Amino acid sequence: MKVRNLLGERLRHVSDESQIESQILMTKGGYMKPVASGIYSLMPPAQRISKKLQAIVREEMDAIDGQEVLFPVVMPASLWQSSGRYTSIGSEMVRFEDRGGNKMVLGMTHEEAAVHLADHTAKSYTQYPFMIYQLQTKFRDEPRARGGLIRVREFIMKDAYSFHTSQEDLEAYYRRAYDAYVRIFRRAGAKNVIAVKSDSGMMGGSISHEFMLLSDVGEDTLVLCPDCGYSANMEVAECITKNAESAPAALEKVATPHAGTIEEVCAFLGKKPEETAKAVVYAYNDTDKYVVVFVRGDTEVNETKLRNLLGKEIHPATAIDEASGIVPGFIGGAGLTDGVDVVIDRSLEGLHDLVTGANEEGYHYVGFDFARDYRKPFAYADVAKAREGGICPVCGKPHLNIRKGIEVGNIFQLGDKYTRAMGMTYLDADNTEKYPIMGCYGIGIGRLMASICQESRDEYGPIWPISIAPWQVEVCNLRVTDDKVRSRAEALVSALESAGIEVLYDDREIRPGPMFADADLFGVPVRAVVSQKTEERSVIEVSTRDKSLKTEFPADRAADEIISLVKKMLGECGR
Amino acid sequence: MKVRNLLGERLRHVSDESQIESQILMTKGGYMKPVASGIYSLMPPAQRISKKLQAIVREEMDAIDGQEVLFPVVMPASLWQSSGRYTSIGSEMVRFEDRGGNKMVLGMTHEEAAVHLADHTAKSYTQYPFMIYQLQTKFRDEPRARGGLIRVREFIMKDAYSFHTSQEDLEAYYRRAYDAYVRIFRRAGAKNVIAVKSDSGMMGGSISHEFMLLSDVGEDTLVLCPDCGYSANMEVAECITKNAESAPAALEKVATPHAGTIEEVCAFLGKKPEETAKAVVYAYNDTDKYVVVFVRGDTEVNETKLRNLLGKEIHPATAIDEASGIVPGFIGGAGLTDGVDVVIDRSLEGLHDLVTGANEEGYHYVGFDFARDYRKPFAYADVAKAREGGICPVCGKPHLNIRKGIEVGNIFQLGDKYTRAMGMTYLDADNTEKYPIMGCYGIGIGRLMASICQESRDEYGPIWPISIAPWQVEVCNLRVTDDKVRSRAEALVSALESAGIEVLYDDREIRPGPMFADADLFGVPVRAVVSQKTEERSVIEVSTRDKSLKTEFPADRAADEIISLVKKMLGECGR
Repeated sequence: MKVRNLLGERLRHVSDESQIESQILMTKGGYMKPVASGIYSLMPPAQRISKKLQAIVREEMDAIDGQEVLFPVVMPASLWQSSGRYTSIGSEMVRFEDRGGNKMVLGMTHEEAAVHLADHTAKSYTQYPFMIYQLQTKFRDEPRARGGLIRVREFIMKDAYSFHTSQEDLEAYYRRAYDAYVRIFRRAGAKNVIAVKSDSGMMGGSISHEFMLLSDVGEDTLVLCPDCGYSANMEVAECITKNAESAPAALEKVATPHAGTIEEVCAFLGKKPEETAKAVVYAYNDTDKYVVVFVRGDTEVNETKLRNLLGKEIHPATAIDEASGIVPGFIGGAGLTDGVDVVIDRSLEGLHDLVTGANEEGYHYVGFDFARDYRKPFAYADVAKAREGGICPVCGKPHLNIRKGIEVGNIFQLGDKYTRAMGMTYLDADNTEKYPIMGCYGIGIGRLMASICQESRDEYGPIWPISIAPWQVEVCNLRVTDDKVRSRAEALVSALESAGIEVLYDDREIRPGPMFADADLFGVPVRAVVSQKTEERSVIEVSTRDKSLKTEFPADRAADEIISLVKKMLGECGR
Repeated sequence: MKVRNLLGERLRHVSDESQIESQILMTKGGYMKPVASGIYSLMPPAQRISKKLQAIVREEMDAIDGQEVLFPVVMPASLWQSSGRYTSIGSEMVRFEDRGGNKMVLGMTHEEAAVHLADHTAKSYTQYPFMIYQLQTKFRDEPRARGGLIRVREFIMKDAYSFHTSQEDLEAYYRRAYDAYVRIFRRAGAKNVIAVKSDSGMMGGSISHEFMLLSDVGEDTLVLCPDCGYSANMEVAECITKNAESAPAALEKVATPHAGTIEEVCAFLGKKPEETAKAVVYAYNDTDKYVVVFVRGDTEVNETKLRNLLGKEIHPATAIDEASGIVPGFIGGAGLTDGVDVVIDRSLEGLHDLVTGANEEGYHYVGFDFARDYRKPFAYADVAKAREGGICPVCGKPHLNIRKGIEVGNIFQLGDKYTRAMGMTYLDADNTEKYPIMGCYGIGIGRLMASICQESRDEYGPIWPISIAPWQVEVCNLRVTDDKVRSRAEALVSALESAGIEVLYDDREIRPGPMFADADLFGVPVRAVVSQKTEERSVIEVSTRDKSLKTEFPADRAADEIISLVKKMLGECGR
């Protein structure tokens, strides 16, 4: 492929510098073009990368006995009604009517379609387990598309669905899928991908893992233990706190005029935040009722854990209705009206001398102890956020790291949620009808591409791993008007292509500066430069995009040397 | 792959025997499952065929310098408004609003997206020509989905768009694309595909060709000349008629009571249909006005040619408003009111003694001659249907064949319709801004698969060409409980797979009848049978699905022989 024929342009600047680095570089490099918010056309270099990623994913899915199928993008609403998700999923699912007035949806995931396909064709336990997968376009009407290909509305996803007759069999397969994912990310050249325990969200089911590419621009927060390797999404990470021994104290109501925040109360009373019980108020989405959450004053509420505990959707209460009896700034563990739900986090367990609001404007209690003074039966719950330096729930050491990550894959144990709802059964060995249990396994191809760019780049452009690079070698001809230089470059291109190497050849009559700037944006792993200077010395300059190699090869051996180099680099990305 | 692990079931019967053969066989064989009208999930065998077809298409598109890209499925209405097609295309385009209330559409073709992608990146004439293509899911809300994968609503299509600076360059590239299409169909094993001139329809533009797979179940009617090779879609085929010499006759009004059809009038007056002028009434879709078309009594009106002549949408008039002055059954070439449009087909040219209605209930004229008696200026038009045995418009011989075909591909010269509407320009060598001209080139992957099945089958199942077959060899083990037979079969499978051959292995404990019936439905080109009987004689039975070969190979040489056979068969499908 010649650069002069390649569709797309390379830019020196982008208009919106607030974008994340991978988005800026992929925009500058002519990888994609926005068509609407969160909807892109992929230009040739990105499509080449996408196809290589898809090939790796296919190989690894086939290696764990996956059978490739294709589900539809457009599905009848009735299919989603049969699982109950037609109503449980909100406006991120596109709904429309076809010309016959039938309600249809755009697929954002395909559990229902997988059950529909497998139903009636796997009626005997002898046909289990099996796994089916597809690579297909999906559409999720994300409210906040951002980060280029990282969070989009339309994307190509590999989604796989496995079917089993026992939890043990699901778990064994889940482990194989987990390992396949590790191989996929390694082969794709993603360096910092870790698996974390995650929240199953709208998928249902119990155990699930997300594969996270560590990155400061990630939208997910991860809790990692450097000592034992524990890792979890913040959304589900347990929060362990250890409280200093404290002596019981007498409960006493004190005036705290104008002290409505933890900081103000602490300053006023000479206390530390960890000696206070902070109250955070949430409202249910479907009723007017409030939930007051008490956590130790120096911790934060983990809303996902709270949501899972309550089993209901909630949101932070902004304006609080006076009739509720809640007195903002002075909410306390004693005397709240019965109409308010209360959750008490276990970070408060064992604290005998807490500061808490008195549920009365201008007053707090000191010496409060939930166990003694709350006066209603309750159990401590775990609804606080894990913290940097916090205690690991597995090994107990206080070295937790909090990091950001981009979710590049996820795997779920779904149980029989979908097969039961949709009435899919098989006849078991004991002659009874049972519901198969399922796992599902997703990878977003475009997001993975952009995440790898985000991880593997310098200020000038992406540094594509050779396994997914749009081309393997770029040949730069710095003097196309010189016949000797041109034939040297063309002979090199032709020798490399004959060896099956994908070559991008730049023979435009432009100065070296812009040519190398473009080459940096293409991010091709190996670069060979032919110029008048190299030709005079009968050499070819060869370097790698990651700067680990910069050398010269004798011109007559250059093709062979480059072929060996490419093979070596490809080998390092192998399974 | 083992049959026992393959998802899907083979059926002996289908509930609706009125379907076309390929649909019945692909349903019986477990190739696909309907999800809604015209929307299917593809099961593993069909997905395997689809991927092979896609690979062939990709290779041929790359060979004519195509650059693969990916356009979105979901596009903003604004993109389609910019070309004018948002309003000109009817309810076959799905429209919906996203969560932000923005009007969106589902892509049914991607001319607008291609111009959007290429715009601003190909600003200089030096960057032309180029071609971009994609393989992507499309959705057309067809009112009558039918024939399994042949006419669906959701489908994967390869669509390509080329951009040029001159009509000559477009024509040269169009020819290359034409040749690539010929290679694609040949490599895919489609035997009876011909290119015909076609109507450009909603695409706009001038010259276009459809690639038609000849088949009685085709929805298109083709006009073919066995003498000179002329071929055209009936929609655009010229109709040439030769009229016998006839002497001028006196115009005379005759009573023809109760004779309102051509047959009745001919019987009553002792005339032949070709001595009459038949009147057919159409109504415009957008006004109340009528169009009366006169054709020779033994010919039919070609509505597509009529539509193109008028430049407006029309439909056959069923109930005719009396106020129009049209007297059904007695419409004639003289005396029609001025409020009615009239088209006179050239099949009536040179006829001097016609029967035609008198525009008066119960009366006709005889001796009518349009040239003499129509009394208003007019030009004969070509709006009649070509006929079996008709005259070829190229070589003039009267041997035209009328055949049915399934459209498996199409290519269009679009001109500057889209670039002009969307304001895409480039700077030409003469320093002026110009609109690039375009070609577009489509192939539906699923339809091609089903059409090849329709063409290449027997009553028991598909006979897949080896280039696209889901597997190349099926090994049938008729006695899996016999250790010697089993190890023989497994050694064969393993030897074939080591040689890179795709093997389907049936080791189910079922009788030979059902096993062979399933094998016929899989349509795998080469079948190897291992049984107790073959094992006793140390042979392996080998046959081809198309019955051209049935032989035995010595067991110890069987793998090598089968490998040679497969290579030979693959070679015959080569480029």
